Amino acid sequence: MSTPTFHGLSILGHSLFAENPTEPATPNTRDAFRATNPATGHPLEPAFYSATPAQLDRAATLAAEAALPFAATSCAQRAALLRAIADHLEAAKVPIVERAHLETALPLPRLNGEMARTTGQLRLFAELLEEGSWVDARIDSAQPDRAPLPRPDLRSMLRPIGPVAVFGASNFPLAFSVAGGDTAAALAAACPVLVKAHPAHPGTSELVAHAIRAAITESHLPAGIFALLFDSGIDIGQALVQHPDLRAVAFTGSAVAGQALMRLAANRPVPIPCYAEMGSVNPVFLLPAAILQRPEAIARSLAASFTLGSGQFCTKPGLVFVPEDAPQAFLDTLDHAIASLAAQPMLTHAIARRFAEHIEQRLQSNLADRIVEAKAVQANADPAIPTGTAAPIVFAVSLDRFLATPALEEEIFGPTTLLIRYRDPAQLIAAARHLHGHLTATLHTASEDLPLAATLLPILETRVGRVLFNGYPTGVEVARSMVHGGPFPATSDSRSTSVGTAAILRFLRPVCYQDVPDSILPPELQKANPLQIDRLVNGQRSRATA
Amino acid sequence: MSTPTFHGLSILGHSLFAENPTEPATPNTRDAFRATNPATGHPLEPAFYSATPAQLDRAATLAAEAALPFAATSCAQRAALLRAIADHLEAAKVPIVERAHLETALPLPRLNGEMARTTGQLRLFAELLEEGSWVDARIDSAQPDRAPLPRPDLRSMLRPIGPVAVFGASNFPLAFSVAGGDTAAALAAACPVLVKAHPAHPGTSELVAHAIRAAITESHLPAGIFALLFDSGIDIGQALVQHPDLRAVAFTGSAVAGQALMRLAANRPVPIPCYAEMGSVNPVFLLPAAILQRPEAIARSLAASFTLGSGQFCTKPGLVFVPEDAPQAFLDTLDHAIASLAAQPMLTHAIARRFAEHIEQRLQSNLADRIVEAKAVQANADPAIPTGTAAPIVFAVSLDRFLATPALEEEIFGPTTLLIRYRDPAQLIAAARHLHGHLTATLHTASEDLPLAATLLPILETRVGRVLFNGYPTGVEVARSMVHGGPFPATSDSRSTSVGTAAILRFLRPVCYQDVPDSILPPELQKANPLQIDRLVNGQRSRATA
Repeated sequence: MSTPTFHGLSILGHSLFAENPTEPATPNTRDAFRATNPATGHPLEPAFYSATPAQLDRAATLAAEAALPFAATSCAQRAALLRAIADHLEAAKVPIVERAHLETALPLPRLNGEMARTTGQLRLFAELLEEGSWVDARIDSAQPDRAPLPRPDLRSMLRPIGPVAVFGASNFPLAFSVAGGDTAAALAAACPVLVKAHPAHPGTSELVAHAIRAAITESHLPAGIFALLFDSGIDIGQALVQHPDLRAVAFTGSAVAGQALMRLAANRPVPIPCYAEMGSVNPVFLLPAAILQRPEAIARSLAASFTLGSGQFCTKPGLVFVPEDAPQAFLDTLDHAIASLAAQPMLTHAIARRFAEHIEQRLQSNLADRIVEAKAVQANADPAIPTGTAAPIVFAVSLDRFLATPALEEEIFGPTTLLIRYRDPAQLIAAARHLHGHLTATLHTASEDLPLAATLLPILETRVGRVLFNGYPTGVEVARSMVHGGPFPATSDSRSTSVGTAAILRFLRPVCYQDVPDSILPPELQKANPLQIDRLVNGQRSRATA
Repeated sequence: MSTPTFHGLSILGHSLFAENPTEPATPNTRDAFRATNPATGHPLEPAFYSATPAQLDRAATLAAEAALPFAATSCAQRAALLRAIADHLEAAKVPIVERAHLETALPLPRLNGEMARTTGQLRLFAELLEEGSWVDARIDSAQPDRAPLPRPDLRSMLRPIGPVAVFGASNFPLAFSVAGGDTAAALAAACPVLVKAHPAHPGTSELVAHAIRAAITESHLPAGIFALLFDSGIDIGQALVQHPDLRAVAFTGSAVAGQALMRLAANRPVPIPCYAEMGSVNPVFLLPAAILQRPEAIARSLAASFTLGSGQFCTKPGLVFVPEDAPQAFLDTLDHAIASLAAQPMLTHAIARRFAEHIEQRLQSNLADRIVEAKAVQANADPAIPTGTAAPIVFAVSLDRFLATPALEEEIFGPTTLLIRYRDPAQLIAAARHLHGHLTATLHTASEDLPLAATLLPILETRVGRVLFNGYPTGVEVARSMVHGGPFPATSDSRSTSVGTAAILRFLRPVCYQDVPDSILPPELQKANPLQIDRLVNGQRSRATA
């Protein structure tokens, strides 16, 4: 059987881990599945085969065996690995982006941008490793003469947690998938990674996995530190989370799947951390003076943000608090901006179907009854729009009705948003207190709004991971200070971020070394501070020997 | 009814929270319970009354209401609060220590030392707050001219997670109880604290709670930030962990109770972090050259460590790997050291009973059958030892038998340890790989042992929170670099410590502020850096304006 190729690169169709063959998968492996081109509805070649439980077990064993030598690598070695992955991705950029385009229908410019984001992210983690202070090195010097008891020499730093299960997301085939933020953070932390590929973009996943494997080989690191596992269903993902060799889980996707993984991780014989980013409705607060002064500009940017990428972002602004007496220009401009947009293909036909169902529910069913004030400000809700696509639609509701209807705070994945009309600042503050966890909250303010904003800010920071002013939450910057997280149900764990260099903390745990001989300490903790990193020495930040 | 007093201080006998009376509890409140003097077996006055569900709910509501104003306090205000608590504890030191002595039978010098540890811990957190860099301030400056898109101004820092449930431990009535490490860390983090008092030392708990409440009043902080809840059983503790206003749980105690709380916290409608420190067996590795060179010294210090405080420490060395051909002097010295010790009172009669049952099992039952090689090197296992006390006993077993008998890695709380005889270094390395999670691992080494120690260290650091050389794990230093934690089953969450200033991280979550006006940012993130703290500015540590 000849190897199927794509732009000259092999796509083998089977799970990839240290020992498995480089031949294409044979049909007798297990249930075959194919990606579908969402733009045409046609299946794409080649077939992919779900991993067997034995393959998963072997990949996990190899990861566990590789964990110790990987933990012993230097930051410099791992920085080189991350840069090599970025280089290999760039070398294969054209086929990867083309394949991702076929598998997701995301526009090529967006996918090229996402590729740049992905390689940039890997290189930012490399910089973090090179800078070195991320290990949180702490030293309390021995005090042999202290009374009543001497103090030993105490040194601590963060060490890798062990093999990590990463679940690829459907809506970011590159930046939140096989070589995405979680993989970059885990490899930076010296944790082996087992990726469960998202079945909607298996070819993209495999091409990216080849780049990672090539970089590992080139870096002379154990092949067991990375594996890619396919599954058309949920069995392999569930088995992965329950495998005794796994030490943490990172997931980006739906609330249903994320909460199922949370439960599995918490109810293992040995529970492990589960970082699930499960989407969000991202409230936007349009404060009175701002909407009065900039009605058109806010309406235009709002329309652009909630329809970006067909609204398939976990940071899509899905709740917009707007004064009852907002200028008509705001609604007119919004109406006009939406009216000019056509239906766009969604990532999968299933996602498009779910979007249509949710909109239908909101328009007509029980739920729509409960929001009788809702109106489609502009809607291309025509059931005849092309299969697999979605058209933008805006609803509106009173704040009182919103507060009484918990379902209205749930995410609808796709190009829709809900305007919530508030009477006065007091009602807006009550709404902020009412919110459950989200990834972001946004305030649009004019200078006259600052006192109200100052009241809202401390409330909102308890509800979200990121508060932003006069912008939109879509377009999450990969930065050292980014927090892409937030309280449940937005994520499983508000103590963490899935974007930015602080994501490395997901996969680390502190270890204290008491009176350990200097020669066998990790270099970060040795007296001479050979890596010249910033450390906390007897309570003071310092690069001195200690 | 007149208020019962102890050394002139009131002991009211009821739960304490912002609104409740200063009168003694009335008998109709709920099931009364009394502390017992473990040395005499006699009940101690006064009676205590379990909190009602309505009281718990009210205390939680008040804590939730106090959370926002508490989060708005400055580090300096909270440092002053912690110092005031320490001062009030010192002012009431004599009655608190006396009452603790009556309720726990721990010796007065030990309790005076524990009081010093407790006040020292509070003041160390105050220093941490004053130094300020614990907030992990990160700044990525705006790049308005960046192509293709401008970068916003991004700033992040750690913020309080919200109200915390703290469970007092039986074995540290001061340092791990009402004003112990978890309370100090949570208050430092600006999280309200609801303490479930350990029912074995309710009087001590109440006296400490009065000191905390006085300090809060004096500091003009909302009374809702602290509550003390009594319960003779487990209902209130379970309800506390499940209360919707609680945001985290911190527990020190048994595996059974800790794992029950873990499950409750994970299976709430809104899951919350649960930090349970559930004890440990703390393997000690006596390497070949060390035991050959220092057999008597190691035996003496080992005997002192595992019998300290009647072995009622979660860091008690309960597994000791010793060469098969260890010098006879080692066993003789151990035998001699143990033989000279009398039975000591345990913290409660129930703990003494459980210890006796475990020892009996190991000596005679199934378990003893499975360790036929075990011998009581020296045992005062006489069933006629005084009620409520325990005498030290040492068992021995071959390493092969140990590896085949998982029950031998389980904690027996009390003055016993298990010698495990190994043949050679390879077998010792296999044993290290076999271990589950513990709080600590200890190596006793001579210089010839360093290569073996260097092989063991990277294995052991994946199994424990602290590795120490040529010492004993009992006596956990309260320091910036301490890690009192470790993988499950030692704790629920290996990413955290319950001792030392890094414990503050338990109760914090990161928040990112994007383009937030400088005037309403927390001072830690303001451009001028008014608190002059160390921050990560565009990837570099700095105190500069940014």
